[in-house]
Amino acid sequence: MQFRIEHDSLGKVKVPKDALYGPQTERSRHNFNIGGRMPMPIIEMLLHVKQAAATVNNQNGTLAADKRQAIHEAVNQLLTGKYNNAFPLHIYQTGSGTQTNMNVNEVIAHLAMQLHPQTSVHPNDDVNQSQSSNDTFPTAMMMAAYQSCNTLIKAAKHLIATLEKKQQEFATVVKIGRTHLQDATPLTVGQEISGWKSAIQHDVDAMQQLIPTLLELPIGGTAVGTGLNTPNNFDQDMVKQLSKQMNVKYRVADNKFQGLANHSQITTMHGIFKTLASDLIKVGNDIRFLASGPRAGYNELNIPSNEPGSSIMPGKVNPTQIEALTMVAAKVMGNDTTISFANSQGNFEMNVYKPVIIASFLESSQLLTQSITSFTDRLVTGLTVNTKHIEELMDNSLMLVTALSPHIGYEKSTKIAQWAQQNDTKLIDAAEHFGISKDDFNKWVNPRDMTNINRK
Amino acid sequence: MQFRIEHDSLGKVKVPKDALYGPQTERSRHNFNIGGRMPMPIIEMLLHVKQAAATVNNQNGTLAADKRQAIHEAVNQLLTGKYNNAFPLHIYQTGSGTQTNMNVNEVIAHLAMQLHPQTSVHPNDDVNQSQSSNDTFPTAMMMAAYQSCNTLIKAAKHLIATLEKKQQEFATVVKIGRTHLQDATPLTVGQEISGWKSAIQHDVDAMQQLIPTLLELPIGGTAVGTGLNTPNNFDQDMVKQLSKQMNVKYRVADNKFQGLANHSQITTMHGIFKTLASDLIKVGNDIRFLASGPRAGYNELNIPSNEPGSSIMPGKVNPTQIEALTMVAAKVMGNDTTISFANSQGNFEMNVYKPVIIASFLESSQLLTQSITSFTDRLVTGLTVNTKHIEELMDNSLMLVTALSPHIGYEKSTKIAQWAQQNDTKLIDAAEHFGISKDDFNKWVNPRDMTNINRK
Amino acid sequence: MQFRIEHDSLGKVKVPKDALYGPQTERSRHNFNIGGRMPMPIIEMLLHVKQAAATVNNQNGTLAADKRQAIHEAVNQLLTGKYNNAFPLHIYQTGSGTQTNMNVNEVIAHLAMQLHPQTSVHPNDDVNQSQSSNDTFPTAMMMAAYQSCNTLIKAAKHLIATLEKKQQEFATVVKIGRTHLQDATPLTVGQEISGWKSAIQHDVDAMQQLIPTLLELPIGGTAVGTGLNTPNNFDQDMVKQLSKQMNVKYRVADNKFQGLANHSQITTMHGIFKTLASDLIKVGNDIRFLASGPRAGYNELNIPSNEPGSSIMPGKVNPTQIEALTMVAAKVMGNDTTISFANSQGNFEMNVYKPVIIASFLESSQLLTQSITSFTDRLVTGLTVNTKHIEELMDNSLMLVTALSPHIGYEKSTKIAQWAQQNDTKLIDAAEHFGISKDDFNKWVNPRDMTNINRK
Amino acid sequence: MQFRIEHDSLGKVKVPKDALYGPQTERSRHNFNIGGRMPMPIIEMLLHVKQAAATVNNQNGTLAADKRQAIHEAVNQLLTGKYNNAFPLHIYQTGSGTQTNMNVNEVIAHLAMQLHPQTSVHPNDDVNQSQSSNDTFPTAMMMAAYQSCNTLIKAAKHLIATLEKKQQEFATVVKIGRTHLQDATPLTVGQEISGWKSAIQHDVDAMQQLIPTLLELPIGGTAVGTGLNTPNNFDQDMVKQLSKQMNVKYRVADNKFQGLANHSQITTMHGIFKTLASDLIKVGNDIRFLASGPRAGYNELNIPSNEPGSSIMPGKVNPTQIEALTMVAAKVMGNDTTISFANSQGNFEMNVYKPVIIASFLESSQLLTQSITSFTDRLVTGLTVNTKHIEELMDNSLMLVTALSPHIGYEKSTKIAQWAQQNDTKLIDAAEHFGISKDDFNKWVNPRDMTNINRK
Repeated sequence: MQFRIEHDSLGKVKVPKDALYGPQTERSRHNFNIGGRMPMPIIEMLLHVKQAAATVNNQNGTLAADKRQAIHEAVNQLLTGKYNNAFPLHIYQTGSGTQTNMNVNEVIAHLAMQLHPQTSVHPNDDVNQSQSSNDTFPTAMMMAAYQSCNTLIKAAKHLIATLEKKQQEFATVVKIGRTHLQDATPLTVGQEISGWKSAIQHDVDAMQQLIPTLLELPIGGTAVGTGLNTPNNFDQDMVKQLSKQMNVKYRVADNKFQGLANHSQITTMHGIFKTLASDLIKVGNDIRFLASGPRAGYNELNIPSNEPGSSIMPGKVNPTQIEALTMVAAKVMGNDTTISFANSQGNFEMNVYKPVIIASFLESSQLLTQSITSFTDRLVTGLTVNTKHIEELMDNSLMLVTALSPHIGYEKSTKIAQWAQQNDTKLIDAAEHFGISKDDFNKWVNPRDMTNINRK
Repeated sequence: MQFRIEHDSLGKVKVPKDALYGPQTERSRHNFNIGGRMPMPIIEMLLHVKQAAATVNNQNGTLAADKRQAIHEAVNQLLTGKYNNAFPLHIYQTGSGTQTNMNVNEVIAHLAMQLHPQTSVHPNDDVNQSQSSNDTFPTAMMMAAYQSCNTLIKAAKHLIATLEKKQQEFATVVKIGRTHLQDATPLTVGQEISGWKSAIQHDVDAMQQLIPTLLELPIGGTAVGTGLNTPNNFDQDMVKQLSKQMNVKYRVADNKFQGLANHSQITTMHGIFKTLASDLIKVGNDIRFLASGPRAGYNELNIPSNEPGSSIMPGKVNPTQIEALTMVAAKVMGNDTTISFANSQGNFEMNVYKPVIIASFLESSQLLTQSITSFTDRLVTGLTVNTKHIEELMDNSLMLVTALSPHIGYEKSTKIAQWAQQNDTKLIDAAEHFGISKDDFNKWVNPRDMTNINRK
Repeated sequence: MQFRIEHDSLGKVKVPKDALYGPQTERSRHNFNIGGRMPMPIIEMLLHVKQAAATVNNQNGTLAADKRQAIHEAVNQLLTGKYNNAFPLHIYQTGSGTQTNMNVNEVIAHLAMQLHPQTSVHPNDDVNQSQSSNDTFPTAMMMAAYQSCNTLIKAAKHLIATLEKKQQEFATVVKIGRTHLQDATPLTVGQEISGWKSAIQHDVDAMQQLIPTLLELPIGGTAVGTGLNTPNNFDQDMVKQLSKQMNVKYRVADNKFQGLANHSQITTMHGIFKTLASDLIKVGNDIRFLASGPRAGYNELNIPSNEPGSSIMPGKVNPTQIEALTMVAAKVMGNDTTISFANSQGNFEMNVYKPVIIASFLESSQLLTQSITSFTDRLVTGLTVNTKHIEELMDNSLMLVTALSPHIGYEKSTKIAQWAQQNDTKLIDAAEHFGISKDDFNKWVNPRDMTNINRK
Repeated sequence: MQFRIEHDSLGKVKVPKDALYGPQTERSRHNFNIGGRMPMPIIEMLLHVKQAAATVNNQNGTLAADKRQAIHEAVNQLLTGKYNNAFPLHIYQTGSGTQTNMNVNEVIAHLAMQLHPQTSVHPNDDVNQSQSSNDTFPTAMMMAAYQSCNTLIKAAKHLIATLEKKQQEFATVVKIGRTHLQDATPLTVGQEISGWKSAIQHDVDAMQQLIPTLLELPIGGTAVGTGLNTPNNFDQDMVKQLSKQMNVKYRVADNKFQGLANHSQITTMHGIFKTLASDLIKVGNDIRFLASGPRAGYNELNIPSNEPGSSIMPGKVNPTQIEALTMVAAKVMGNDTTISFANSQGNFEMNVYKPVIIASFLESSQLLTQSITSFTDRLVTGLTVNTKHIEELMDNSLMLVTALSPHIGYEKSTKIAQWAQQNDTKLIDAAEHFGISKDDFNKWVNPRDMTNINRK
């Protein structure tokens, strides 16, 4: 490998000859060889911040037009994704994300000068002008969090719409209810699905109510939140410019000291991800148990067969999409522990767990988005009911005895149910044994009426 | 001990002679001798539900007026707290809270008949009429969660108001900032406190935005969510009656299947408690480190001395209120793991982790309320600044060199700072060594200007 | 209420007239009105420490014999439990447990002088002699943790022994296996139970391997771990004396600085509690699903009916013991988050989360002990198998087709299974349709052989 | 892109023309486009399992020598890492890891036939012979967990050895102690470091005691744990062969039903990782606070400057290695929540959270190994003490007053300390004010004696 020699305040650094990045990136790459890469959405949002800053600084008369132009073009090139290997740094680095901010500054400056060889662009003085890692990095965190949360909401709404269709499709299929896992009074498959849908809907509602809190950008706070070395109104100018660039209505952080030292909004939003994860586990478990069998399980639902379950055993369809979904949910629960811990550990003017907070947040939102989409399209859409078995279970149920009680009294009803259980018969046969005609039984015992589906 | 003999469907039960409760309570007491008692707010909310149900059932013509009257009086008596030992059951019991619902039914019936010996009141047929444990218990959960969350918001607002006062009190005290725990550029004590206040405010805002989700009551769902055995509109009648009784605007649950099988709203709200806990840790840590010393610490703040810290060592004031507060925060973080896990484990028409969910939620909200109140009144209110030491630290700081740079250039500024560090002198003396007059230094280096406090 | 006036270094304190405790306890009671009481095992262990210290201090010639005698008698009285209301302090107090240590000192001194009016006993100078809160409290933590862990191991072994009996009882009952919740190849009920037993056994083994780490006592470290103000060998003398008193082989902490500032051993042991909790959830879920029904569930196992499940529905037995057990497990998982967070937050010579660490540890160990015992005695012991349904499920299973393959080839086997699934018949009938005689089928398809129960 | 057409039981599959993998891998790649890749150590361990199985199956006469040879060579080639892109599957897939097992089977078969075109090697019949995903995947989990845990132990021991050196280097540097963050009695820097070392040592000891539990391999259990379709002693033969291949003493799992359905051992071991993480946070926090400054912090320690902290501010060295370390610790805490949840969710004969369990375990062990190594080599090794400031802090301390007490009495000592605090003087000057000569003061107040460093 060939190298070029660069300098920083600690001395000489050997940088790979063709690298777009410079000495600070190179040092970090060696000093922090720990874990995976900083997620690209953070890099992208930093690129947008740098582009906006070039515009604002130029408007303020502190950055020459050719430098602005060079920076703009470099950012546009970098946003295509062609140069992603210019951002080799890891999540586990300095806790303020300084090294990634410098990585971005170095790469933009380098590429800007490649594109405009006549223009000098300095990573700090030009690209980072009026900024600090301490405000750009949390600004990029909020922007990336907002974007990924938005994407997740869309995926969750797609699941809701799909469940809504299934709810209508099976609106009148009456089935046995189960509480404490024990046979209970009937409901329809549509009603059961409506409960799943409602749980996800509650979580989407909560996300939508709080997503505006992710629009607060601490840009303009610089090193400690006071905005030292920024011109007047730099915060508002930046927010306007970023809003225009991204077509998103950002606003200046309520309080920049909080914006640098606490990540309350991200922590709370991830708390809703965690609730969503827990609700998905419930929905996933319900479906896989209801699809259990084919012979020795509940066997009420059929799920699509996406891959060979067993080469010899027809009908064995493993609920693999649900297994992926619930594994994702387990990871999201863990990320919530990580983020909550990290948010608690700010000190004074800074929280130095920024990279692990945003990387965990983005990991959760991306995993949820991908697994919800996969689960919706590859499982929920293809869900069918096993009407025959559902009816058999209803038919066999002893819980319907509750419908007899108003007609023949509590005591006699109990005896019928006990007799049916002891003799392993259906309720209708037991009722006949106690002198209730099948006609009367069928008139009185109407599972569909017990579901109250016509009520509202 | 003396006993009376009662019967239930499993046979004879010996009940303590004077107990207001009956056989189901007595069985549970013995079968579940695990951990602490069901929290009283749940009992109280169930009492309110029973009282409302008596009203509605009487209006619907299915409960005689004398029974309604007897139930009302019994509930009023029980709400005084005089009979709390009539509710001896544990948190760790049946996961639907059935035994506590039956405990309440039994005690109301028993006391109603004591108060109105001529009236027969049956625990199931009368007190539990049109209800099931499966809908009354989650209804009581929501009501208790709402109430306790409201109380917590009040306590948090009291903290915010107190921080606001301190922010103003110390608005112009300029101090050194710290990032990565390293000396950084200055800010005022008021600015620093504004960051603490803003963090708590963000959490209160989130709670206030989502607290209406706790007003959804699944009453009327009965056994599986379908409302079997309820008259038409029972859900709406109950919600109206409860709203009137409690002076709170409840509403019928969006979906009663979700209301019985998922506790998404409670889980999400507790997620915000957890964020609040994490922000309180940050604030608490800042204060205790800034008050560390008296000689070998940061020593910028003084906290009130509420108890002897050291019998021989004056000035040693342990930050005990913060220690209690942060221990509470640790417990809240744990409760979040508990509740999230529990919410994920519903099956079909029921989640059977209800008692541990609501007990953990109430434990968190109560601990936070109490510790925030104690912290506010016994510590924050009495916070003072150690102006002399704050000034010394500012005076000694090398970070002020950043203010010299525009006047004498970057390179010379760096040399001055290096010389000061190597020779362990103040910056002003080092500057003089490099030919900067003290007058110039004091003109150029104005920490207060560096804080931008006059900007907005 | 009547009061007496006492003094401490901050001034006058009104103490309830008959209280055995003194001014420091009284101050703490008012300053920390947060949450529940300090667990009694901590008080008891502190009482033992004080008694041992009186012995050792007397041997060292620094505590007069009459004082030692008075302290001993007071401790003996207090250990009877008669005076428990003399220890009113809360968990959420100073994070070193200082106030509880002083509470114990005050109460012992007060009672000692009541019992021996001629002897003067001072809380600090005599009862706390050669000690500090900073070493006595973590010493009491370790002693209480050890004791409670030991009790939990006994409860878990009782569960293992009960599972062992059930394993043997159902050793040859062949049943269908389930993987991914789908029907799989057979095993015996005994084999399935052996898996449950093995999981618990692994956790007991881990606890037993690490329980000696809880025997390390940091007594003798006093304020910061150096042992300032202790005579030579005070640590070893105390450990010897405590070992004698408690009949447990304690040892001097490997490193007292670690002993005051880290609670690694308790955190690791609680990690095993958490694994045990997670394994209990698996076992509990298996049993409740296998007992689900009676008609529309797996219905392979019958669990004892400890309380009325449904007044009208015979056979509906809710798995309430499992619901209590798994709610406990959820709480233990939460406590693990609490304790791990707390252990991470030590600073310099002290961790100030001691009370919440030990209270959460003891909550977990006690809840696990109680719920495992209840689950074992009220559910596992009474477990029976529903042989008829287990055989039906085997009989209906299509998975047995794997046993045909070696005799008639893979391809034909698959066709038989497909035909059986499409026509909803048993495998034996489908086989006959393809020309396999029932005799051959029964010779070749022997579920019991497929379980390999005779192999080892 | 060019494709070839392959078939499986669900029909045709288009596979990239040159892919070593086959149709099942290709289906999974599309069905589970969620998150990152299955960690390579799992692939490697599966390769070893396949190689061992080929040997054992050949010994048993069920696999021809040429097939064994072809499989062996293919595995050897694959272990070089040249073909890693042949393993494109994701962590979030089927919860048994079936698709990764099939990926490995397909790739080995394909490559074996490339290497030995005359030999036919079938993925299922040959490579997977006598095995099932259900036993090979958890076997690979244990092997990978063992290996990574071993590596972590080595890294932790390197940290311990480095701390040991520093402990000796600073054995006699007396410094002020701090409890509750407040000034306390003295200790040496060596003593303080010994506490850090002891915490890590406790965690290494626990890992070493329990690491043998990771040697239990469930190989031979096949589909449900019974060993269906395995020859006699296959489990023992495999364990012997794997032990030989890997030079590690594996043993047959105590109970294969537990081995497939529970991951207790991995969960418990990760619990120790979590304790280690929490202890590292404490050590990291201590170091970064003690290195805080340079002027407005504790400033007792100096840490190496690995990258420019501030371009203008000399002496500002951000504790970035600690920031990376504590971010890793936060991630490990989250992974513990994930793994514990996942371990609780087994059902019947299978736990279907295997991939997320092992991926999270390996993520933790690798992150800990890398960050501990980086922290040790780039920070601890270069740690120096700021003797001058340490002495100043000692000199200024009021806590030394405790050493005066035995000579001049408690009351007078208190007065001296109060006077010093009120007049902001040193204790020695205050003592002189009260008539204690400086000679006497220096004779009586000897911080080094107060540390008891000579005691043992």
